[in-house]
Amino acid sequence: MTQRKNRQFLLVSRPVGMPADENFELREAAVPELEDGQVLVRTLYLSVDPYMRGRMSDAKSYVEPFALGEVLQGGVVGEIVESKNERWKAGDVVVGLLGWQEYSVSNGRGLLKIDPSVAPITTALHVVGMTGLTAYFGLLDIGKPQEGETVVVSGAAGAVGTVVGQIAKIKGCRVVGIAGDDEKCAYLTEELGFDAAINYKTADLNAALKESCPNGVDVYFDNVGGDITEAVMRRINFQARIPICGQISQYNLEKPDLGPRIVFTQLLKSSALAKGFIVNDYAKQHKEGMQQLAQWVMEGKIKYRENIVDGLENVVEAFLGLFRGDNIGKQLVKVADL
Amino acid sequence: MTQRKNRQFLLVSRPVGMPADENFELREAAVPELEDGQVLVRTLYLSVDPYMRGRMSDAKSYVEPFALGEVLQGGVVGEIVESKNERWKAGDVVVGLLGWQEYSVSNGRGLLKIDPSVAPITTALHVVGMTGLTAYFGLLDIGKPQEGETVVVSGAAGAVGTVVGQIAKIKGCRVVGIAGDDEKCAYLTEELGFDAAINYKTADLNAALKESCPNGVDVYFDNVGGDITEAVMRRINFQARIPICGQISQYNLEKPDLGPRIVFTQLLKSSALAKGFIVNDYAKQHKEGMQQLAQWVMEGKIKYRENIVDGLENVVEAFLGLFRGDNIGKQLVKVADL
Repeated sequence: MTQRKNRQFLLVSRPVGMPADENFELREAAVPELEDGQVLVRTLYLSVDPYMRGRMSDAKSYVEPFALGEVLQGGVVGEIVESKNERWKAGDVVVGLLGWQEYSVSNGRGLLKIDPSVAPITTALHVVGMTGLTAYFGLLDIGKPQEGETVVVSGAAGAVGTVVGQIAKIKGCRVVGIAGDDEKCAYLTEELGFDAAINYKTADLNAALKESCPNGVDVYFDNVGGDITEAVMRRINFQARIPICGQISQYNLEKPDLGPRIVFTQLLKSSALAKGFIVNDYAKQHKEGMQQLAQWVMEGKIKYRENIVDGLENVVEAFLGLFRGDNIGKQLVKVADL
Repeated sequence: MTQRKNRQFLLVSRPVGMPADENFELREAAVPELEDGQVLVRTLYLSVDPYMRGRMSDAKSYVEPFALGEVLQGGVVGEIVESKNERWKAGDVVVGLLGWQEYSVSNGRGLLKIDPSVAPITTALHVVGMTGLTAYFGLLDIGKPQEGETVVVSGAAGAVGTVVGQIAKIKGCRVVGIAGDDEKCAYLTEELGFDAAINYKTADLNAALKESCPNGVDVYFDNVGGDITEAVMRRINFQARIPICGQISQYNLEKPDLGPRIVFTQLLKSSALAKGFIVNDYAKQHKEGMQQLAQWVMEGKIKYRENIVDGLENVVEAFLGLFRGDNIGKQLVKVADL
């Protein structure tokens, strides 16, 4: 067999502040021969997600930093093209944590088989995959929304936020989304059924929250942090719950910026709970979550939008776009056709 | 019967920043005649507590503000000197939420009878009363300390902090206290069995925490907020728990001061939980908690210290002293002898 060429993105330096092209290098390498137990996965779609910024730094965090000079990793939907592992065969479509490259070698652990007849294969990277599960467990296990309560979600038009809001609607809540432009806000209220959406870049956030949350805030699903979070925290109710899923406003700062010290004060005044989490905290329940999410998608109760950029060479640009708020719904990179 | 005179402290204006004498007025009034169902309680000891500062403002909070022109309220140990309520008789010693005055009229609801043969009657205002229960439920229900874990408590030499640390020791934890002078620190380590104590006014707090918490922080019981809390938050472990009991550094600020926005980021990075609470959240379990605390006190496993000021006229000064860090252990005001 002829040696396959493999284009791949490496992290070559750690970003300070906003990542830039110079932190990444696209190189061409040979695809290695498989050893016993391994499979070769041809990348079809790559997922880019804000949490990856954390792995580019070497500060202590919940996920191990990417190593310098190594291929970057992320969610991948791919096709198995060679297998020396009896559990997998060529032609299987799988999702897993693999490389930012055209071909990845895997021992098969952590790969999940996708049934393309159930839902489009890309959804395994978001609404019935990691971001959907993140929304599902953070909202239901930490947020515990009750019928008639008010749920506010920041980063509402992103891959996690859109699912959070729709699950909260399924649970009978009033749902208010905060997003960064009018197109996103219109999408939330007109297509996804949010009760209200606030463009934080143009609205008076405090006044808009007061108007859209007349009964206060029972659950605040936080993707962003910073002054948006402080504004919502001023309106939380007694025994409110705050799942902390992301703090995207902070990820590209060289050091944390300053804000009023109200977060713990507000938790204290309201006997409220805040909890950080990542989707892996719920690894044992992922299967249950995926089944529920897939059912809601098939029933039309959860809708989604994908923003797909073509070509492995554009993955860095797609990643950086997350911090500019370019995407509505899930940002993906298409690397090859099935 | 001759009409009794009753000296009492009223709140006459709302403090802005640190409370001052002008916010309070000492006046003399007549003790009203009792109606059916009422009892007259002669004040023996008054409790002053930091949370009262919140009730002096009219901002929304977990407790109703004190009304202007009305007698201030707090924990009182007193003797029933007249009763038109069949559940109570003259001579009963009780604890309850009553006025900053020499005599309070009560319908008996919320009063608890004290048995002076079990423990000194003053302890009903702290170690087997409100502050002890605050420590007990905040630490055990939210903090959930496990044997071998590291528990850090701020405001460690206060009425709550001293009990938190001693319960954590009973549970087999490494306990580190943060307090504001060397005498307090010596008290914590030499008399109460804390493993380490940090004087935040003289130590390099980050270095001292690193040294005294070599395995990180599993539980942070927060009484103070501000930069002390930010320093501890930098060292929390995966799935740490943070009971938020007080934020005394913030109570007398006209508006919240600024700090680095790291609190939610740290919760996120560590899948950690923070929860505000007040002792009333656990009202249904108070009896169980008091029994356990009384037992530990009798067994010598929980020690306490009282700082007693004499005379109703000194109650404002004793209250203000809480914010200067004057007290080790529980600050009380003695109003009359039993």
